[in-house]
Amino acid sequence: MKREKLEDYVLTIPDFPEPGIMFRDITSLIQDPDGLQDAIDGLKDILKDVEFDKVLGLESRGFIFGTPIAYEFKKGFVPVRKKGKLPRETVSAKYELEYGEAEIEIHKDSIEKGEKVVIIDDLIATGGTLEAACRLVEELGGEVACIALVMELAGLEGRKKLEKYDVRTLITYEGK
Amino acid sequence: MKREKLEDYVLTIPDFPEPGIMFRDITSLIQDPDGLQDAIDGLKDILKDVEFDKVLGLESRGFIFGTPIAYEFKKGFVPVRKKGKLPRETVSAKYELEYGEAEIEIHKDSIEKGEKVVIIDDLIATGGTLEAACRLVEELGGEVACIALVMELAGLEGRKKLEKYDVRTLITYEGK
Repeated sequence: MKREKLEDYVLTIPDFPEPGIMFRDITSLIQDPDGLQDAIDGLKDILKDVEFDKVLGLESRGFIFGTPIAYEFKKGFVPVRKKGKLPRETVSAKYELEYGEAEIEIHKDSIEKGEKVVIIDDLIATGGTLEAACRLVEELGGEVACIALVMELAGLEGRKKLEKYDVRTLITYEGK
Repeated sequence: MKREKLEDYVLTIPDFPEPGIMFRDITSLIQDPDGLQDAIDGLKDILKDVEFDKVLGLESRGFIFGTPIAYEFKKGFVPVRKKGKLPRETVSAKYELEYGEAEIEIHKDSIEKGEKVVIIDDLIATGGTLEAACRLVEELGGEVACIALVMELAGLEGRKKLEKYDVRTLITYEGK
């Protein structure tokens, strides 16, 4: 059902996956044909003045929004995966979690020197994973042209970690 | 670089993730702009005579091929996720692994009674996960209109588990 604003498709689930967290659920957005059209068209629109060669999507909700964008702009798509899932030679980057750390990686041949890359995910929270993804791009000699996201939890100040990048979002939630 | 056949983009990695397995790597296909175009266009083509309302994609490589198809055909996209990742009320289905079992789920409100569903993944191997995904669709009163896959490992005979469904694939490998 066509809704006025993109955020009208997003359900908010209190206390998921842990008490105190307001989970912004994009599955309700994408299961609606109009919601999916509006989200992808919105990302296409905020990227229309960006020059880029490749799209990176973060496992796994970044795959959902990243691949249609790569296809529409006729670019290659690079999945950023959790450590150990890619079969060929990789570069990897660590980032901090609330408790401990995690590691993401991409294939070494997935970005060529000088390529301009758009990074896509569903959400920016603290920005830790996105910042690690930027390091992967730069380690391979690529350049982060833009970071495009469906949602932003502004209260978590993820943009601070990404100050040197062009971060664009479709929906901003003021809280955490 | 434009190649003659879709399989020319796919790299084969011996002994990944375990000795004896020939891993068919679609990351080399999708990171190539022409490879991604050809794969999505191929799926669009084999689905052009199928009537459907929704696209289901299996976590997580099925997200890569499923979302562009949902967007192109202006349908909703439903992510089939591993147990515990979806925030709202779900239905779940178990399937056997080589050792033990695993469980996948979708939201209860993601398919309406009578809806025709296309299920998309990168690969059919033994067919266990796909068969479980079909059960999820049917539990919610939906109908599996087609199962569309990029690759098929014919030697594993996954089609036997899916005999009552319309299974279509772009690339067939005779072995396992």
